[in-house]
Amino acid sequence: MKIILDGMGGDNAPESIVKGAVLASKETNAEIIIVGDEQKIAKLLKKAKAGDNISVIHATECIENNEAPVKAVRTKKDSSIVKGLNMVKNGEGDVFISAGSTGALLAGGLFILGRIQGIDRPTLASIYPVMGSEPSLLTDAGANPECKPNNLLEFATMGAVYMEKVIGRTNPTVGLVNNGVEENKGTTLTKAAHELLEKSNLNFIGNVEARDIPNGACDVIVTDGFTGNAILKTTEGMGLVILKEIKKCFTSSAFAKLGAVLTGKQLMAVKKEFDYTEYGGAPILGVKGALLKMHGSSDENAVKASILKAIPYVEGKVVDIIQDSTTDIETILLSE
Amino acid sequence: MKIILDGMGGDNAPESIVKGAVLASKETNAEIIIVGDEQKIAKLLKKAKAGDNISVIHATECIENNEAPVKAVRTKKDSSIVKGLNMVKNGEGDVFISAGSTGALLAGGLFILGRIQGIDRPTLASIYPVMGSEPSLLTDAGANPECKPNNLLEFATMGAVYMEKVIGRTNPTVGLVNNGVEENKGTTLTKAAHELLEKSNLNFIGNVEARDIPNGACDVIVTDGFTGNAILKTTEGMGLVILKEIKKCFTSSAFAKLGAVLTGKQLMAVKKEFDYTEYGGAPILGVKGALLKMHGSSDENAVKASILKAIPYVEGKVVDIIQDSTTDIETILLSE
Repeated sequence: MKIILDGMGGDNAPESIVKGAVLASKETNAEIIIVGDEQKIAKLLKKAKAGDNISVIHATECIENNEAPVKAVRTKKDSSIVKGLNMVKNGEGDVFISAGSTGALLAGGLFILGRIQGIDRPTLASIYPVMGSEPSLLTDAGANPECKPNNLLEFATMGAVYMEKVIGRTNPTVGLVNNGVEENKGTTLTKAAHELLEKSNLNFIGNVEARDIPNGACDVIVTDGFTGNAILKTTEGMGLVILKEIKKCFTSSAFAKLGAVLTGKQLMAVKKEFDYTEYGGAPILGVKGALLKMHGSSDENAVKASILKAIPYVEGKVVDIIQDSTTDIETILLSE
Repeated sequence: MKIILDGMGGDNAPESIVKGAVLASKETNAEIIIVGDEQKIAKLLKKAKAGDNISVIHATECIENNEAPVKAVRTKKDSSIVKGLNMVKNGEGDVFISAGSTGALLAGGLFILGRIQGIDRPTLASIYPVMGSEPSLLTDAGANPECKPNNLLEFATMGAVYMEKVIGRTNPTVGLVNNGVEENKGTTLTKAAHELLEKSNLNFIGNVEARDIPNGACDVIVTDGFTGNAILKTTEGMGLVILKEIKKCFTSSAFAKLGAVLTGKQLMAVKKEFDYTEYGGAPILGVKGALLKMHGSSDENAVKASILKAIPYVEGKVVDIIQDSTTDIETILLSE
C-alpha cells in the first residue's frame, strides 16, 4: 500500500507531518510518500532517523488557506495537493492525506479525482467526539452548505460505509438532524430526506435532536453542511468555554487549588476526550479515490493516527463500496 | 400594570406557577392574574399566603404539549392560553406569560393577537447563556425553520429592541450566524441577509461563527429557526454531557472525592451559569402584544424571574417600538 502524505499542509508543516510519518512507519509496512519541499523534508527525515518505508516526492508549490480554492488547484500544478491527488488518480498512491486547505482538497478531489458516478455531492465527513463513549461521524461538516434531499441520502450512505469499514462500527445507526424527533417536524429538506432514508437499507433510526448528539445519539449524524458546521463549531466553542471556566474556578482559592491537584488526573482525562486526533481526520467521501483531511493544527500524534486510519480506508475498499452503493441510491430516487 | 399568567402550562403547573407568582408579587406592585383551574389555584394561593395583588380567572381547559397547536388554539376556547391571550388582546392585561406548548403560544399569538403590520414572521427569541459573562439573545430559536432574508432582518431588529429595553444592553451588537466570517461565505439566505443587515441602522458586526457564540460573540445572534434550534440544543447537550463527565471523575477515587469537596462551591457556580432561569423566558416578538414563553420545566424561581422581566417588556413599550421600526425594515427592503 502506498500512502501519499501532504508534507506542506497545516500549521505545523512540515515538522509534525514528518514526525507523524516516522511514528506511523514503525507500526505499519505501508509505504509512506511525503510530497513537498524535498530538501526540508529529507533533512527532517534524517534527523528523525526515518526507516526505509518513507520517501519524498518534490513539489515546488504550496496552496495556502487564504487562496481561492478552485483557482489555486487550477494554477498551482506543482503544489503538494495537486501533485498528491494526481498520484492517487494515476495509481501511484492509494490514499492522499493532507492538513492543508479544506477548500483546495474539496476542489482538487472534484477536479482531479472526479466524482463517483451516481454521487451528486461529495461530502466532508467529520469525526464527532462523544465524551465517555465512541465517536460519531457527522456528515456533511461544511462542504455543502445548501443541500437537496438526495444529497442527505448520499451522505448517510457514504458515512455508514466509512463508519463500518474504517471505524469498525457494525451496522451503524444513521440519524437525521431535525428540530424535533417527530416525523412531521422539520423543513422541506429534512421531511423529504426522512422519506428517502426510510426507504433505504441503512440502519436509519429517524430524526435526532441536536441536544442528543454530544451524548452519542447515533453513529452517522446526517445534516446539510450549514447546520453540520454550526453543530461542530458550537460543540467546539462550548468545550473551550467550559474548560476555561473550570480552570478559573480551580484557581479561585487555596482550597480550590488543592482540590484541583487532587482531581487533576481525572480532569485531564475529561479534557482528553475532546481530542479528535486519535480517530484520524475527516474523510472526503464521494470522489474517485481515498482522501483524508486532517485538522490544520494536527500535531505528530494526529498525523500518525491519520496515517494508520488510512489503512482500513484503503483495505476496506471504501471508495469501491460507495461506488457499488450508488445503485441503491438510484433505486430509491427512482421510486419517488 | 396587569400581568396575565398561564396557571396550567409547564411540567410543574400549577404549583410552581403559583409559588413563582407569590414570590414575584413581593417585589412588584403589578397586578398578577393567574388563568386556570380556579379551585386548585385558589387553594395553592391560600396555602402560600398570597397578597392582594394576585387574583385568578377560571379556565376550564388546558392545551397539552402533544396537541396540534393550530387545532388546539381554534377549538379549546376556554383554555388558559386562549383565554389569557384574549385578555391581552382586549386590553384586560398587558402581557401574557406561559410555560405551556410553544406551538400553541406561537399559533395563538398569530391568530389571537395578530402579526404586527410590516412583520412577515414573528420570532421566538431565546436567551442564550454565556458562561462568565452576560447572556446573548438568539433569534430565531425554532419558530421559523425556513426563512427568507427579510425574516432575518426582522429578527435582528426585534431582538435588538428586546435586548435594549428588557435586558438593558446599550446599542446591542447584532451578528449573523454563518459558516465563516468572510462576507462571501454562506448560503443564498445568509448572503442576502448580510446585505440587508449592512443597510440597517442596527449595530451589525457581520458574520459570526458558531464557535464564538458560547463565548458571547454578540448581543443578538441572528439565524433561521432550524440552525438556531440546532445551536441551542447542541449547547444544552454539551453542558449536560460535560457536567456528567466531571461528576463522574470527581467520584472516581478517594483523592478525587476530597478534591470535589474542596472545589465544590466553585464548580456549583459553573453549573449555575447554565441556568437560563434568571433572565426570564423567551419573548415571542412580532405579534400585537407582549408574550413571554417560559421553559416547560420552569420552577418557582424561573416563574418569578419571568414575571419580573415582563415589567420592562411592558414599560419599555417593546411592542410599540417594534411597530415603529417596521418603517426602517420596509425602507431597506424597498431599496433592494
